[in-house]
Amino acid sequence: MSNQKLFNVAVVGATGAVGEQILRLLEERNFPINELKLLSSERSAGSKLQFKGQEITLEAAAPDSFKGIDIALFSAGGSVSLELIPHAIKHGAVCIDNTSAYRMDSETPLVVPEVNIDKISEHKGVIANPNCSTIQMVAALKPLYDRYGISRIIVSTYQAVSGAGARAIDEMLRQSREILDGNPVEPQILPVGALPVKHQIAFNAIPQIDKFTDNGFTYEEIKMINETKKIMGDDSLEVTATCVRIPVIYGHSESVYVELKQDFDVEEVKQLLADAPGIVLQDNPAEQLYPLASDAAGKLDTFVGRVRRDLSNPRALNMWIVSDNLLKGAAWNAVQIAEYIAIEQK
Amino acid sequence: MSNQKLFNVAVVGATGAVGEQILRLLEERNFPINELKLLSSERSAGSKLQFKGQEITLEAAAPDSFKGIDIALFSAGGSVSLELIPHAIKHGAVCIDNTSAYRMDSETPLVVPEVNIDKISEHKGVIANPNCSTIQMVAALKPLYDRYGISRIIVSTYQAVSGAGARAIDEMLRQSREILDGNPVEPQILPVGALPVKHQIAFNAIPQIDKFTDNGFTYEEIKMINETKKIMGDDSLEVTATCVRIPVIYGHSESVYVELKQDFDVEEVKQLLADAPGIVLQDNPAEQLYPLASDAAGKLDTFVGRVRRDLSNPRALNMWIVSDNLLKGAAWNAVQIAEYIAIEQK
Repeated sequence: MSNQKLFNVAVVGATGAVGEQILRLLEERNFPINELKLLSSERSAGSKLQFKGQEITLEAAAPDSFKGIDIALFSAGGSVSLELIPHAIKHGAVCIDNTSAYRMDSETPLVVPEVNIDKISEHKGVIANPNCSTIQMVAALKPLYDRYGISRIIVSTYQAVSGAGARAIDEMLRQSREILDGNPVEPQILPVGALPVKHQIAFNAIPQIDKFTDNGFTYEEIKMINETKKIMGDDSLEVTATCVRIPVIYGHSESVYVELKQDFDVEEVKQLLADAPGIVLQDNPAEQLYPLASDAAGKLDTFVGRVRRDLSNPRALNMWIVSDNLLKGAAWNAVQIAEYIAIEQK
Repeated sequence: MSNQKLFNVAVVGATGAVGEQILRLLEERNFPINELKLLSSERSAGSKLQFKGQEITLEAAAPDSFKGIDIALFSAGGSVSLELIPHAIKHGAVCIDNTSAYRMDSETPLVVPEVNIDKISEHKGVIANPNCSTIQMVAALKPLYDRYGISRIIVSTYQAVSGAGARAIDEMLRQSREILDGNPVEPQILPVGALPVKHQIAFNAIPQIDKFTDNGFTYEEIKMINETKKIMGDDSLEVTATCVRIPVIYGHSESVYVELKQDFDVEEVKQLLADAPGIVLQDNPAEQLYPLASDAAGKLDTFVGRVRRDLSNPRALNMWIVSDNLLKGAAWNAVQIAEYIAIEQK
């Protein structure tokens, strides 16, 4: 494709857990790149990363870093996005933001390509990537929403520590070894780095992800509730979430109860899921086949199983949804959006 | 108390994970024992266990083992209970059965002392101890049921491997070390010893506990649904369960959504829970206080927190319920029942 348009791409937060996966995906997917700029904190600037066999030197992200950039992928924290995205937009870049900074902004599309890719044309310089736990859920529920309508969603999550960053993975692995060796653990990061109280995550389940809001829900739970409504474009959706961190490295699992607006046939539901883009149905009780975080890790798809009609409410379904939180839950969803932008501007 | 009646007690399955805790509790609680008989499989017979500083030799459990026994605690598997309980009853013993063998039998009381201790007087020789995941949930929900009424319960569990026995604990710890050392794992026990397919439990979440029934639910899920209705004495209760094994050694956690029949005040709900027998309220978001399996392990109580009004349904509550699955979920509930029988017969 000699006439393919090539893009100047910036990755902000290139050394983070998500930034690393974004680079790997841009490489593997052969994204049409003219120039790739890797931006980081002052601390990481000057170090080098490999991309397609070439060394690229990290530069400290600054307002003028975005001159000539066509597409900028942000995953360096909300404050960095809030500071730099306005500058990137001024320089003409389309920003894909992986933080929560712009997600609920009424002028910013919040996009999961399988659900609402049509929204990207409405952007005013920035497209927000939803929260990891939201993305996999709406991707799996979209075919049911379109076919039957959905009135209520009640979700309990089983979230991997990688969602809290590379240091949280290290902490969980270190604690695991300490406990196996019979040594005491001294939690330092989880559940929330910025809060004073720390809890053991190894061989435990912590019902707190992000800080608490005034109503007793955590921000993670509120994100799932609000983002789901925004992505589905349906404020009447009733959503409840309980978000829990468990000792898994990669892959969020979700137990989802969903009330549909119309009667359904379970086999038809399974067929809709099997046929849906980005969804893999893994559902065969006779063979003990259902999604597992250990299988989903490293894959781009969202896996759905344990699909069954609720015994107390014939209009409701229970299901189990699993996806790699750093991939479909973050890097892959962002790169997917970048690919759609590239196609649009071709 | 020189005039206290003393009982001849048999513990069937004394070497198992639950049997071990039953012995420890009978000792610690100073249960009024005249003679203690420890019964096991043929394989373990002849070995010795310590009780109050004395060595007791294990005997192979047989139909005539129960001559002269007043109270027999069974936790050696459903088939052992089905075989031996009729003989124990014939010999005049009151049996407390920790297996699922008699739970749904219409003539057998299914008892959680905090909920329905009045049912023990209706026994015909056997009182069933409910499933671990059911016990802690109904203990926590009973005060709300009595005050407001409950119409619907939707629960997702985070269950410890000790619920699958000592070998499952060993497997989880062994797999954890193998993964930390970068070695491959070869699952051999979980999710269900008797089924052909095995899955990694270390750093994973397995949405299968017990075998599957024909409707896509597992037996563990069906137990939670049916036992909750029976213990609460309310067939109209709508209950949904998704049961998941996670890499925790001791302590089941549960994310519970519950719809009440009347309006409620959240602070009053918390006070009801704080005042309820066997329940400890751990609920202070400002101090990041909520129940954790790591804290509940080794304790007799059921811990409740994350109590909050649902944002989509003002008649609904979300909460997080944690208890030691081998204690309140098994051994302690059984010994509690034995204590009530001892008091009744005093």
